Amino acid sequence: MTHIKIINPNTALAMTASIGRCARAVAARGTVVTAVSPSMGPESIESHYDEALAVPGLLTEIAAGEREGVDGYVIACFGDPGLDAARELATGPVVGIAEAAMHAATLVGRSFSVVTTLSRTAGRAWDLAHRYGFAAACRGVHACDIPVLDLDRDPAARKTVTELCVDAVERDRCDVVVLGCAGMADFAAEVADETGVPVIDGVTAATKLVESLVALGLRTSKRGEYATPPPKRYSGLLSDFTY
Amino acid sequence: MTHIKIINPNTALAMTASIGRCARAVAARGTVVTAVSPSMGPESIESHYDEALAVPGLLTEIAAGEREGVDGYVIACFGDPGLDAARELATGPVVGIAEAAMHAATLVGRSFSVVTTLSRTAGRAWDLAHRYGFAAACRGVHACDIPVLDLDRDPAARKTVTELCVDAVERDRCDVVVLGCAGMADFAAEVADETGVPVIDGVTAATKLVESLVALGLRTSKRGEYATPPPKRYSGLLSDFTY
Amino acid sequence: MTHIKIINPNTALAMTASIGRCARAVAARGTVVTAVSPSMGPESIESHYDEALAVPGLLTEIAAGEREGVDGYVIACFGDPGLDAARELATGPVVGIAEAAMHAATLVGRSFSVVTTLSRTAGRAWDLAHRYGFAAACRGVHACDIPVLDLDRDPAARKTVTELCVDAVERDRCDVVVLGCAGMADFAAEVADETGVPVIDGVTAATKLVESLVALGLRTSKRGEYATPPPKRYSGLLSDFTY
Amino acid sequence: MTHIKIINPNTALAMTASIGRCARAVAARGTVVTAVSPSMGPESIESHYDEALAVPGLLTEIAAGEREGVDGYVIACFGDPGLDAARELATGPVVGIAEAAMHAATLVGRSFSVVTTLSRTAGRAWDLAHRYGFAAACRGVHACDIPVLDLDRDPAARKTVTELCVDAVERDRCDVVVLGCAGMADFAAEVADETGVPVIDGVTAATKLVESLVALGLRTSKRGEYATPPPKRYSGLLSDFTY
Amino acid sequence: MTHIKIINPNTALAMTASIGRCARAVAARGTVVTAVSPSMGPESIESHYDEALAVPGLLTEIAAGEREGVDGYVIACFGDPGLDAARELATGPVVGIAEAAMHAATLVGRSFSVVTTLSRTAGRAWDLAHRYGFAAACRGVHACDIPVLDLDRDPAARKTVTELCVDAVERDRCDVVVLGCAGMADFAAEVADETGVPVIDGVTAATKLVESLVALGLRTSKRGEYATPPPKRYSGLLSDFTY
Amino acid sequence: MTHIKIINPNTALAMTASIGRCARAVAARGTVVTAVSPSMGPESIESHYDEALAVPGLLTEIAAGEREGVDGYVIACFGDPGLDAARELATGPVVGIAEAAMHAATLVGRSFSVVTTLSRTAGRAWDLAHRYGFAAACRGVHACDIPVLDLDRDPAARKTVTELCVDAVERDRCDVVVLGCAGMADFAAEVADETGVPVIDGVTAATKLVESLVALGLRTSKRGEYATPPPKRYSGLLSDFTY
Repeated sequence: MTHIKIINPNTALAMTASIGRCARAVAARGTVVTAVSPSMGPESIESHYDEALAVPGLLTEIAAGEREGVDGYVIACFGDPGLDAARELATGPVVGIAEAAMHAATLVGRSFSVVTTLSRTAGRAWDLAHRYGFAAACRGVHACDIPVLDLDRDPAARKTVTELCVDAVERDRCDVVVLGCAGMADFAAEVADETGVPVIDGVTAATKLVESLVALGLRTSKRGEYATPPPKRYSGLLSDFTY
Repeated sequence: MTHIKIINPNTALAMTASIGRCARAVAARGTVVTAVSPSMGPESIESHYDEALAVPGLLTEIAAGEREGVDGYVIACFGDPGLDAARELATGPVVGIAEAAMHAATLVGRSFSVVTTLSRTAGRAWDLAHRYGFAAACRGVHACDIPVLDLDRDPAARKTVTELCVDAVERDRCDVVVLGCAGMADFAAEVADETGVPVIDGVTAATKLVESLVALGLRTSKRGEYATPPPKRYSGLLSDFTY
Repeated sequence: MTHIKIINPNTALAMTASIGRCARAVAARGTVVTAVSPSMGPESIESHYDEALAVPGLLTEIAAGEREGVDGYVIACFGDPGLDAARELATGPVVGIAEAAMHAATLVGRSFSVVTTLSRTAGRAWDLAHRYGFAAACRGVHACDIPVLDLDRDPAARKTVTELCVDAVERDRCDVVVLGCAGMADFAAEVADETGVPVIDGVTAATKLVESLVALGLRTSKRGEYATPPPKRYSGLLSDFTY
Repeated sequence: MTHIKIINPNTALAMTASIGRCARAVAARGTVVTAVSPSMGPESIESHYDEALAVPGLLTEIAAGEREGVDGYVIACFGDPGLDAARELATGPVVGIAEAAMHAATLVGRSFSVVTTLSRTAGRAWDLAHRYGFAAACRGVHACDIPVLDLDRDPAARKTVTELCVDAVERDRCDVVVLGCAGMADFAAEVADETGVPVIDGVTAATKLVESLVALGLRTSKRGEYATPPPKRYSGLLSDFTY
Repeated sequence: MTHIKIINPNTALAMTASIGRCARAVAARGTVVTAVSPSMGPESIESHYDEALAVPGLLTEIAAGEREGVDGYVIACFGDPGLDAARELATGPVVGIAEAAMHAATLVGRSFSVVTTLSRTAGRAWDLAHRYGFAAACRGVHACDIPVLDLDRDPAARKTVTELCVDAVERDRCDVVVLGCAGMADFAAEVADETGVPVIDGVTAATKLVESLVALGLRTSKRGEYATPPPKRYSGLLSDFTY
Repeated sequence: MTHIKIINPNTALAMTASIGRCARAVAARGTVVTAVSPSMGPESIESHYDEALAVPGLLTEIAAGEREGVDGYVIACFGDPGLDAARELATGPVVGIAEAAMHAATLVGRSFSVVTTLSRTAGRAWDLAHRYGFAAACRGVHACDIPVLDLDRDPAARKTVTELCVDAVERDRCDVVVLGCAGMADFAAEVADETGVPVIDGVTAATKLVESLVALGLRTSKRGEYATPPPKRYSGLLSDFTY
């Protein structure tokens, strides 16, 4: 049995539940998926500020996962917050959903475009494309400018996102669409129908990648950068993070 | 049921059988793995010449796979020969073992080194690292200078390869080792023990990636570059390739 | 006397004859130009599939050229198929027409745009620009979407291509136009008149580059990657390729 | 009067005091320098985990600075933690010490090498060099493997660091040395004497850059990525970060 | 006291005077700014030809500055002509205004666009962005096609430049505007008002950077590339340049 | 008849004569080669200072060439000084010897190393490799630290250079050697014998490239960056450069 823990770094529990459902729909028999939100932090992540402050809660969940014997982790926010720190804590693999989506995209096409929520997050998407090696494959990052929490509240959101994806394929001449928010996970089928190209949701992609790495016996390398952090005293509000 | 066809583009059948065994060992229940060699081409691939001439047989196997209802393909030679052409023919995903190994490596570490067979193939490994976006993550490509077919014939090969991997980790300060030949697949466990870092064999990595893409419902994008090739008359020895 | 063999990797003999004429028009006195098509393979090259299957015939012609004492080779298809493998077989220099055109373009301007045939081949043009080091100089790749064999059959083709070139110069603000198909060789003068910028046809550019390399006494380096391939047994349809 | 607030993101107050002294020594008349540590977080920063958990305290100090009318900020840890989030909160400029040191280095030489504390942080230094555009100028990152808090406790540290710098200049053939830790600030003069090249301490460099940007009337751009974060509810331990 | 010498490499003395005024307006108390034009060379710099021929006069001014005890230099032409040669002659720091503007831009935003004079100089701006490491941050280079000397003669120039800047921010979605000519220095405030983003004039930015480097005790590295030139005999018109 | 003018930008006439001899040895029948030195400037070029001051004389020779009906130009110094400015003045093609050597090197191998004179010029060689797109192909730049004018005076120079080339091939595992100084032109044959790889002298390579471009009817593009410079008044010592 493989235990995958998906951490939605925001505290929007309906979104966390939906993320869990999407992941379970693709997981293999024998894979148990747990989807959680941290007990602290922002209700949605729409800025560097939110992203930075989502990380302490995320790390708490990784540390708990280690005690629970979790085999691998998914970070279910398209900014992949705290990925490096999470890898230091985790024994098994940790994969971010932006990372997973971009990896998957380049396996089924030559190029992709990202459709994301707010314009202000486009820079982060490009940063990640550069970091993971996919800047040349990324043809564009497009924002629908719908706040994260409105994606499932606003009945027009699905249509707006779908139309933006159709437009992106046309303008960027890309082969694949990457959905740039965990909250868009269940738009994938509709967008694929409308665009006629493969559409990647990072939550499901990351779930399968983590499951694969576990099946391959591959864990986060503990040589060098991702070695367990050196013990350290923490103070104040964060004193419980002493490691 | 998912049917994955692994094509070893050379005609060394013992190697093909071993590749099949390695892949089956990691495949999920419900995945059927077929491992084949083409009926034409080189007995091993150690030059651009060999690689180019391995492609017609590979494409014949892809075309046959399409008639057989194959869900996805692995190209089991570290040069990933014929990858683009195979993707044009295939409905499902096609993944090369160098591609798969490099993707997996960057998910469990910040950097990797490749240990390959002949020095003359190092340039090809670098070309692929550049193409897939992993040139910055690739710290080195090292050749053991053992011919492909001697990897399992020569009793000293395993030890030579293992020592070279230990050396590469030390010199390159990399986090992960990538084995640069399908014929090294069953050295992975031993190399991992000796180096203390994750060791990636592309055959198993590619098998899991293809299985994952199929589970995600992702197929090769048919928009643009990987669309089905336009019909064309072929002549002479290759007239059967008329499409 | 210098003997340059131009291999048109498709089997369209009228195109081969035209390629030979263009090359001879620029060759120095003392240079003998032979233009051939292989006896096997696709009638035109418009996909990765076609390109891969053009290579065996091309390599047969290189091998024959070595027996004939050829001094240098041109590969006359804008995808530069089989270039690395051809260099392994050849003693003298081997130059592809995309390679030659891009080299020449950067010697007479700061930037160039490519005008090619089918949209699906644009990715290949970009791949080559990256490989040769000219990605920053390449401002755009534009497709006229006229099939290769219609370039000389369709009376409107010349006008369509010319207008597309004019448009590319305007939109991309480039200094030079590169014609992206051997079948466009005799459009060069007209396109130059209409655009007012240097227009490069790769066939003539490659012919002069090969002639120059031969005059300089420069042959393909046999150290490392382009050394003669190791001997190998080939089987089935390709058994004659045993080296 | 210009008020610059230097935030040492760790809680080692002796180090904070020393940072303040170094900064004041180079500040112009009319510049007031405040050096602080957050009231929460790690006592030193030696991992991605430490770095991520230093950010909440850092952001608290930026928010306080905004209320205090601070003109500009320095983030005094060589990983430049929280830089993007800090820029979202700040009206004035925010500069990290790695960023400042690399900028300064490329103004007085063609290349630089970084000498840092623990080997595990070398990857972060390279990441920053890439992000800021200085990867080509950065010739090497070398670790002395002395923990941050031992830099001023261990009497041999100064000598070890100096020798490593001399060695780096020799091996990397670089023009400039960058000291890769705020705790090395007062080694700069000695290292310059021994190496004969300019030696950059990021704390002083960042102080002067912030002072310069303020004098130029330049503030963090609020168009796009660094606009004030959208208001958001925070919960649990971090509820005070509600913005 | 710090003595900064600003060399306007053209011979337009009104422009030199204006440059001096702009620089003095931002210099710290205790900084003396001298602004000069060479006694030889072009009246304005609008081509590579002009730029190359501005360098001898510039170098004469650097050599004179060394005799005068100048602490640091600004090269006040956006092509940064003669920067490397000037650094060889100078003991103190030498900063070009394109260099300074691009450095400053990336400290207050994630991206910038350049607004310059003639279209033909756009390539030079891009070359400098590449050289300094800011090619990824540079979103566009836009020409107003107003000759340098008309910037202050033509009453419409200010409005044309401002509108082009507004347009560039909109189209390029950049965070910051860089003014691409020393002759635009006093348009900065108006452009900032109209665009709502930070606007960088290289003259003032360079003045503060040089002042900062001097305050930090940083001089041009004399190890390697910027060492004093080896003595050499010069002949003809340039015999006075014998070093 | 094709007239190629080779400009050795230094004033060492023996070197100019030798350059002319080398070029004539490879020129086609029907090509007339003139080799000249300017009437002003440095006796050898070993610094950015020398290089900058070699340009006025070079441009005088280009301007004279235009009056003389020259078809194309070679700039015979490995720093390719004044290349952009020369292209603005010239109607026909202008090629630098570093540029030519690097182009030729990548046509006969996958990688090259440069062997140059003084260490201080290595940075310039790397700059040019970047500019021309060959940074990835350039494996190393090695200095023999023999002054330019000693190359033919010092009887040991030939041996020192040859040994350094042998060493470079071994250490860099490169396929090709590029000689990094016009004064090394007649060492090429010996170095090729000793290293066993193709050895490129830029003077002969550039001569053939220019000859080829002329034969192809290709001239410097006058669209955009290389258009004729706008007329301008020059003053002082350089008043004769008024254009």
